[in-house]
Amino acid sequence: MATADTQYPDRRRAVAAELAAQNVDSILVTHLTHVRYLSGFSGSNAALLLNKDHSARISTDGRYTTQIAEEVPDIDCILGRPCADTVLKEITGPRRVGYEADYLTVTEYERLQQACGEGVELVPVRGIIEKSRLVKDSGELDGLRSIAALASQAYEDMLAAGEVAVGRTERDIAADLEYRMRKLGAERPSFDSIVASGPNSAKPHHGADDRVIEAGDLVTIDFGAYANGFNSDMTRTLIMEHTTDFTKEIYDTVLQAQLAGVKAATPGTSLRDVDRACRDIIKAAGYGDYFVHSTGHGIGLDVHELPYAATTGSGELAEGMTLTIEPGIYVPGKGGVRIEDTLIITSGEPEIITKVSKELRVV
Amino acid sequence: MATADTQYPDRRRAVAAELAAQNVDSILVTHLTHVRYLSGFSGSNAALLLNKDHSARISTDGRYTTQIAEEVPDIDCILGRPCADTVLKEITGPRRVGYEADYLTVTEYERLQQACGEGVELVPVRGIIEKSRLVKDSGELDGLRSIAALASQAYEDMLAAGEVAVGRTERDIAADLEYRMRKLGAERPSFDSIVASGPNSAKPHHGADDRVIEAGDLVTIDFGAYANGFNSDMTRTLIMEHTTDFTKEIYDTVLQAQLAGVKAATPGTSLRDVDRACRDIIKAAGYGDYFVHSTGHGIGLDVHELPYAATTGSGELAEGMTLTIEPGIYVPGKGGVRIEDTLIITSGEPEIITKVSKELRVV
Repeated sequence: MATADTQYPDRRRAVAAELAAQNVDSILVTHLTHVRYLSGFSGSNAALLLNKDHSARISTDGRYTTQIAEEVPDIDCILGRPCADTVLKEITGPRRVGYEADYLTVTEYERLQQACGEGVELVPVRGIIEKSRLVKDSGELDGLRSIAALASQAYEDMLAAGEVAVGRTERDIAADLEYRMRKLGAERPSFDSIVASGPNSAKPHHGADDRVIEAGDLVTIDFGAYANGFNSDMTRTLIMEHTTDFTKEIYDTVLQAQLAGVKAATPGTSLRDVDRACRDIIKAAGYGDYFVHSTGHGIGLDVHELPYAATTGSGELAEGMTLTIEPGIYVPGKGGVRIEDTLIITSGEPEIITKVSKELRVV
Repeated sequence: MATADTQYPDRRRAVAAELAAQNVDSILVTHLTHVRYLSGFSGSNAALLLNKDHSARISTDGRYTTQIAEEVPDIDCILGRPCADTVLKEITGPRRVGYEADYLTVTEYERLQQACGEGVELVPVRGIIEKSRLVKDSGELDGLRSIAALASQAYEDMLAAGEVAVGRTERDIAADLEYRMRKLGAERPSFDSIVASGPNSAKPHHGADDRVIEAGDLVTIDFGAYANGFNSDMTRTLIMEHTTDFTKEIYDTVLQAQLAGVKAATPGTSLRDVDRACRDIIKAAGYGDYFVHSTGHGIGLDVHELPYAATTGSGELAEGMTLTIEPGIYVPGKGGVRIEDTLIITSGEPEIITKVSKELRVV
């Protein structure tokens, strides 16, 4: 298992081993998330050239001379701008160099072509690094556990402080939660926080606005923290002051669906079946038309990444993948509930890293 | 002058008027900032086709049916994914359609080519919309004044509350400032806040970490708010509890340089001369080698956009442009000062929209 000392070379070795199958000699990594994944460099300008023999070169600009020496002690660095051109100019042909076609702009691609030396040929490659990222190593799992724990702590502290209360606005609650995450060490929210109250809770993509929370409201809070390259993602729905038959019914239904989804999330299970495990319970309760999105997504260096659990999903789960399980019911005009955990797939039961109670909470 | 009712059609007319010179019949706008600029649509998935005669079509997906009808009442919408393909498939040749080569990825470009009907030819275009964005209309200026006022208020409130004090960490101060901006209506910070204290103040790109602030420290706070598509950007440097000859000297030098830069920022002045106005004062004080970045940048829908005031800058200022003036001195190991305002260029003196005192403050 990778340790902090070996994780970057281990990742580079895994990606390098895929290059021959893509018929390229090297890959020019320009997507910064991927540069960080393969080297540990966290600056805002860099490119990495990784060869079949897993040797590598990295480039950044003069602002990061000290930082790159500290973060990437094991790869030779060349300073220059643009970084991708700088590293590409170092090599001679004949060589087939893969570029990240899903991330490179047309303008950047044309500029790279100009920077190619004699016999150096640029070839589009896609999905190699994403495939490597699909199963997390111990460094990634530690980072994900840590940021999920931070976000969970902030949420529990907010509830304990009585910040979610009738009379507050959605924005007040988002601001409070984000402040608590920041104080605990988050660099920023991993996405714009959702605090969706009353009728707004029926909109899955509502943000957080000036609506004042009322007694009887459902309040869906979907939020995450970002630090050290890693993201968290969790949703809880609260009920304000008193339940109704409607709010209790849809809460219980979503909770049962969510528990079924978690139970289904084991190695070898198809992603469609995970989605179906949630969806069947919501359908059986008569709310099938109100579960208007898919069941979950992977999370890591991106908030949304492979795999995807959806009716149209493909593939199956494997140990070391991550997955959110986030079924919801949204009844326009009346309200909605979503409950979301982030899981790590293990050989046994999944490990839930968003360790906050899902029991119905009336606050 | 554009009003809120006419700003989007006025912008589309201005961009459409440039298309003939680029030898294209239409432009397929896929960069979301540009879709918003030309239509007002703020969703996360859209494409806009704008024709020479300034007629337009827009596309988004089913999540945004209601939102696009509210935000873009004056353009026909087609629902479909991918949005760019959807709108492109609606048109027939012969037609030369410009695509945004600086933003479209190679993969997206290849997919678009497949979606082209008979006689529809894709042609790279660059800089047309950026050119239009260079001089702000009244809707943009109002948005920029408003977000700069919000950020300024948050900063003043933070100082009044005594939050910047010896014993606090940089992260405490960043969290407090971001919380205040959020409560006042910001959707998020416009970039990761910088709170750089003591020796960290000598690093222009420092973030905000766990360093505890000490008496005698310089504390540079560089921050901005984002709301309704617009960004703010401002820097102030405080001195903790007592000055020294060194901190006073570099503060005074940077302040004189900043005032000279503001004074120089008038229509017709070259961007190099604005940079030089700041730089000459810092050089004359013997700190020329410690002003390691350029003087300023435009701001609007992006935090950093045209124009750029730098030693290698080109072009000159015109009424309605924005520009930051942000000279700094950074002495490694000792400390640094940066003072930054955002200006709107007017026919007379520039309008400073970051209305916070620049006098030396000891807190």
